Amino acid sequence: MTAKREKLFLITNDDGIHARGLEALIEMVQPYGKVMVIAPEDGQSGMSHAITVKYPIRLKELEKQKNLEVYSSNGTPVDCVKLALSKLCDRKPDMILAGINHGSNSSSSIIYSGTMAAAMEGCINGIPSIGFSLLDYSPEANFRSIVKYAKIILESALEKGIPLDTCLNVNFPVNTYKKIKGIRICRQNKGVWKEEFEQRLDPMQRDYFWLTGEFMNLEPKAQDTDEWALHHNYISIVPVHVDLTAYRAMDQLRKWTIESG
Amino acid sequence: MTAKREKLFLITNDDGIHARGLEALIEMVQPYGKVMVIAPEDGQSGMSHAITVKYPIRLKELEKQKNLEVYSSNGTPVDCVKLALSKLCDRKPDMILAGINHGSNSSSSIIYSGTMAAAMEGCINGIPSIGFSLLDYSPEANFRSIVKYAKIILESALEKGIPLDTCLNVNFPVNTYKKIKGIRICRQNKGVWKEEFEQRLDPMQRDYFWLTGEFMNLEPKAQDTDEWALHHNYISIVPVHVDLTAYRAMDQLRKWTIESG
Repeated sequence: MTAKREKLFLITNDDGIHARGLEALIEMVQPYGKVMVIAPEDGQSGMSHAITVKYPIRLKELEKQKNLEVYSSNGTPVDCVKLALSKLCDRKPDMILAGINHGSNSSSSIIYSGTMAAAMEGCINGIPSIGFSLLDYSPEANFRSIVKYAKIILESALEKGIPLDTCLNVNFPVNTYKKIKGIRICRQNKGVWKEEFEQRLDPMQRDYFWLTGEFMNLEPKAQDTDEWALHHNYISIVPVHVDLTAYRAMDQLRKWTIESG
Repeated sequence: MTAKREKLFLITNDDGIHARGLEALIEMVQPYGKVMVIAPEDGQSGMSHAITVKYPIRLKELEKQKNLEVYSSNGTPVDCVKLALSKLCDRKPDMILAGINHGSNSSSSIIYSGTMAAAMEGCINGIPSIGFSLLDYSPEANFRSIVKYAKIILESALEKGIPLDTCLNVNFPVNTYKKIKGIRICRQNKGVWKEEFEQRLDPMQRDYFWLTGEFMNLEPKAQDTDEWALHHNYISIVPVHVDLTAYRAMDQLRKWTIESG
């Protein structure tokens, strides 16, 4: 009889090491095994899949217990995953969990998200990965109200396995626990951020810009999307892959008849 | 009889405004219409789809002629596209072109690329977009040798149209023009960067890390991938979309039977 090895969970986020969503996720995962946390020392929202190649990366040990290690880094969320896999973990993690993000990563927002990039980096490395996000930016966001559902998803993933070469984009509606209607498997909604740069003058009378924007849902009537689910108080799960090939477009391109050789 | 409006091309990259690959692309596109260039003032390789939300964005006008406007910005490649669409272009560009990138954006490298992120941002905004990359990092990289092929691709895209909701990831093999065997429509190769952080001590005896890595092709025998094409001296074209949904995984997730409500 061999002892079952304890599971190793790697946890990160893009809101930074002090984020309440991260704290809630760590607390939730600890009963399931050993937890290794490495998160940006400061917020890294909107950093997408960026990696740091121009500057040296620093790593700070914050806590080292038998079943919980916590580190911060000046790098991006994807740097954090790469650092953990290369320098911190003594074995391949059983799962990578990112979040709980402060704000939505549904629809096209997934493309800009550092939290979902961390999960996708796990997927590239063949590690089952889940990103969790709560559609609530307020400082009072109630992360604990959604932990019950996050646990159902985590336990299903541990028991049944995440489909090969995919990771999960899980978003929770802004709601107290009682109002959530259920969980839905969805596709990514088609949407776009309409930018309105705010133009200002600095004290030297030079222009500068702040990026602001408004999300536009390009298919508000479709009922199989994450946006629809979230606006109807469902938790959305979108399986996500890192193969960006638009397979259906390949035949159309072949009609260009520029293939040769 | 109405005069045909001149086409407007938006050009950017992630190697920065002074990159030779950008210069080659501008020169190539000018005969086709009006050219608007906005590129990062400094290199932004590996910035992926990052956007700048924590710092103000600056914009510098470098050149303003009737058919060529050139700007630089302290923002990321995606910031550049957003700035152009929101502040610089008097109409929606007919096409967004990114590159010519110094180095490969094939296989999973597409995920980290600022150049391909700019093309994908065009795609999100419904604008036909192409990213061009040359697999040559050397300062002597011969961009002009590939322009003949880039023009064939550009002219086909203008004439026949890029498939809806996709953009093109075009990579050129490291080669003098004579050795290129042809053009192939490919799918994205499955691969992963194996990281080896180089650990050093700063003058204060504190650790710091440099990200380095080696690309591992996880399906070296597949002949329909961009990696295969490039290693056999073909130009690769991968149609890319921004819908990351792993549709085939949806049924498998439904077997978890956690859907409810």
